[in-house]
Amino acid sequence: MLKLYTYFRSSAAFRVRIALNLKGLPWEPEVIWLPEGEHRGDPYIGVNPQALVPTLVDGTLRLNQSLAIIEYLDETRPGPRLLPADPAGRARVRSLSMLVAAEIHPLNNLRVLKYLKRELGQDEAQIGVWYRHWCDEGLAAFERQLEDGGAGRHCHGDAVTMADVCLVPQIFNARRYETRVERYPRTMKIFDECMRLEAFRRAEPSAQPEAARAG
Amino acid sequence: MLKLYTYFRSSAAFRVRIALNLKGLPWEPEVIWLPEGEHRGDPYIGVNPQALVPTLVDGTLRLNQSLAIIEYLDETRPGPRLLPADPAGRARVRSLSMLVAAEIHPLNNLRVLKYLKRELGQDEAQIGVWYRHWCDEGLAAFERQLEDGGAGRHCHGDAVTMADVCLVPQIFNARRYETRVERYPRTMKIFDECMRLEAFRRAEPSAQPEAARAG
Repeated sequence: MLKLYTYFRSSAAFRVRIALNLKGLPWEPEVIWLPEGEHRGDPYIGVNPQALVPTLVDGTLRLNQSLAIIEYLDETRPGPRLLPADPAGRARVRSLSMLVAAEIHPLNNLRVLKYLKRELGQDEAQIGVWYRHWCDEGLAAFERQLEDGGAGRHCHGDAVTMADVCLVPQIFNARRYETRVERYPRTMKIFDECMRLEAFRRAEPSAQPEAARAG
Repeated sequence: MLKLYTYFRSSAAFRVRIALNLKGLPWEPEVIWLPEGEHRGDPYIGVNPQALVPTLVDGTLRLNQSLAIIEYLDETRPGPRLLPADPAGRARVRSLSMLVAAEIHPLNNLRVLKYLKRELGQDEAQIGVWYRHWCDEGLAAFERQLEDGGAGRHCHGDAVTMADVCLVPQIFNARRYETRVERYPRTMKIFDECMRLEAFRRAEPSAQPEAARAG
């Protein structure tokens, strides 16, 4: 069975959990406690040299970076295709995915917020302003790209793709930091559509077993 | 002919320039002056709703996000393959590419450094510390992943892939901010190997026509 090194609040792990569920693939979780720095310790670095969550283990293969994992699952497993069949469509889906994964999320993840607090002496309010600044900039771009054509009930036409898989965890994070997501109505309509699907709901942070243990 | 909205110092545009050169594709540059904020103005947002450089125009298609563009070129154009043929190899190359594009570069690009200066009142020395912190963290992970197996003369075996295309611009940036890149000998050996190739040299910032105009 596939094994996923995961943590309930990790956006990147959340993406992979959604993809596994959409593909109908059973997986076994192995929780890595990010707040305690378990991902930076020797045992886990032996699994994932990038010292980041998630890692997917498929037989003897250890795969990391959420988008690389999702593309791998899409290429090797049956089930609904998360990347379109045409190169232009694939480019559009990858572009929206990267807008989340390479423009918004890297500026707002835990290690950066910790650095702002510890090294730059920023207080909670200032960290919130930082968070919402990058989140708003990115979501405004996401909304413009949806309006630029190609979206339907989902980010790319009417079927779920990797772009939806990336969008949903970002909206969970945005709300946690009180971003005014109602400014992005097209984006939020698609988010709501995704959350009608069990594959998304079953992947969300509060549905993970370790959420209760984290308190 | 392909048209590339580019800027000589943009790492993401540098990646696409390398890929175009490796594929032997002629392209016409359209310079977007990032320091003057031209990418955030209406005419360019009409071209690229993400308001980021680069954009590649292929006929009626406007493509953005450098890795999405590179995968598109690889899927639609002949010439050396920048992604391996096997899914596991593709996952590894994408993972190394994303380590640069989603972990190192987003924290160190111009808009972030400007925010640190203007909004958080950080001086040049503090910005340098920030830059090198994330660059070192990412390059150390890159080095560990290379040591974990799979590398050869290049990041993935002995042929150039998208991982090399992402690595080279990051090293140019790292040096500009005085990162001690000699700490990463395996990575730097591959960088040196890449720089023996004309496709990389012809794409570098100082070789772009606008470099002279920028002074």
